[in-house]
Amino acid sequence: MFTHEYFMKMALQEAETALEKDEVPIGCVIVSNDRVIARAHNLTETLNDVTAHAEMQAITSAANFLGGKYLQNCTLYVTVEPCVMCSGALSWSQISKVVIGARDEQRGFINKNLTMHPKTEIITGIMENECSAIVKAFFKSKR
Amino acid sequence: MFTHEYFMKMALQEAETALEKDEVPIGCVIVSNDRVIARAHNLTETLNDVTAHAEMQAITSAANFLGGKYLQNCTLYVTVEPCVMCSGALSWSQISKVVIGARDEQRGFINKNLTMHPKTEIITGIMENECSAIVKAFFKSKR
Repeated sequence: MFTHEYFMKMALQEAETALEKDEVPIGCVIVSNDRVIARAHNLTETLNDVTAHAEMQAITSAANFLGGKYLQNCTLYVTVEPCVMCSGALSWSQISKVVIGARDEQRGFINKNLTMHPKTEIITGIMENECSAIVKAFFKSKR
Repeated sequence: MFTHEYFMKMALQEAETALEKDEVPIGCVIVSNDRVIARAHNLTETLNDVTAHAEMQAITSAANFLGGKYLQNCTLYVTVEPCVMCSGALSWSQISKVVIGARDEQRGFINKNLTMHPKTEIITGIMENECSAIVKAFFKSKR
């Protein structure tokens, strides 16, 4: 039951909530022991804050929930590959696993040759088409 | 009067405030038209939050002050070279200038071959010794 797709669907629901607010539709959840302990979507426009990416909010929220700043034994599901800022934050958090929907060749951390914490496992391509389609449709509507 | 040293001293005062809280002593200020519009120091331990670096807080605070998320015509003075996370956030902010005290060869963004926004000017080595000394003394006391 608790497959990668199961949790990525929840992250996609967060992306859809972002879309309703006219935000770049990216969402994520953080899972610990098969339980969602944080969920967030991009709020950079609403909050007028470039740091308000989904992942940044979820990291803060999960740490609050756990009562400690390290996210060991946690998995992040995020609809789009984290940017430099978010990959840096995830590195500091020592999160165990990062599961990515769609790649972001331009802004994502992978093509910048950045690595996360040595303990962090990275998985890409879960529900890639759905995660990519919502962002592409958003930017197309803005042109 | 409004030299780089003038504002870096204010950033150092923030670092000293961090030190009093037993935080890694790094501080910063953001300046717009010779006026300090944000000041912050590292609070990762106090807030149990890996994202609570001085720069991240100052970016959010300055955007709040300005009423917009872009920090064009702003200068960040920071006592230690920003990490990957903070350099990513500064890139998104399109800040005009980043003035750095001490380098951080290991954790800083420069040796990761990361660049900020093309419009961002980067200056290093302002009050380098003072900015470096406070951090070195902190880590020595922890050993």
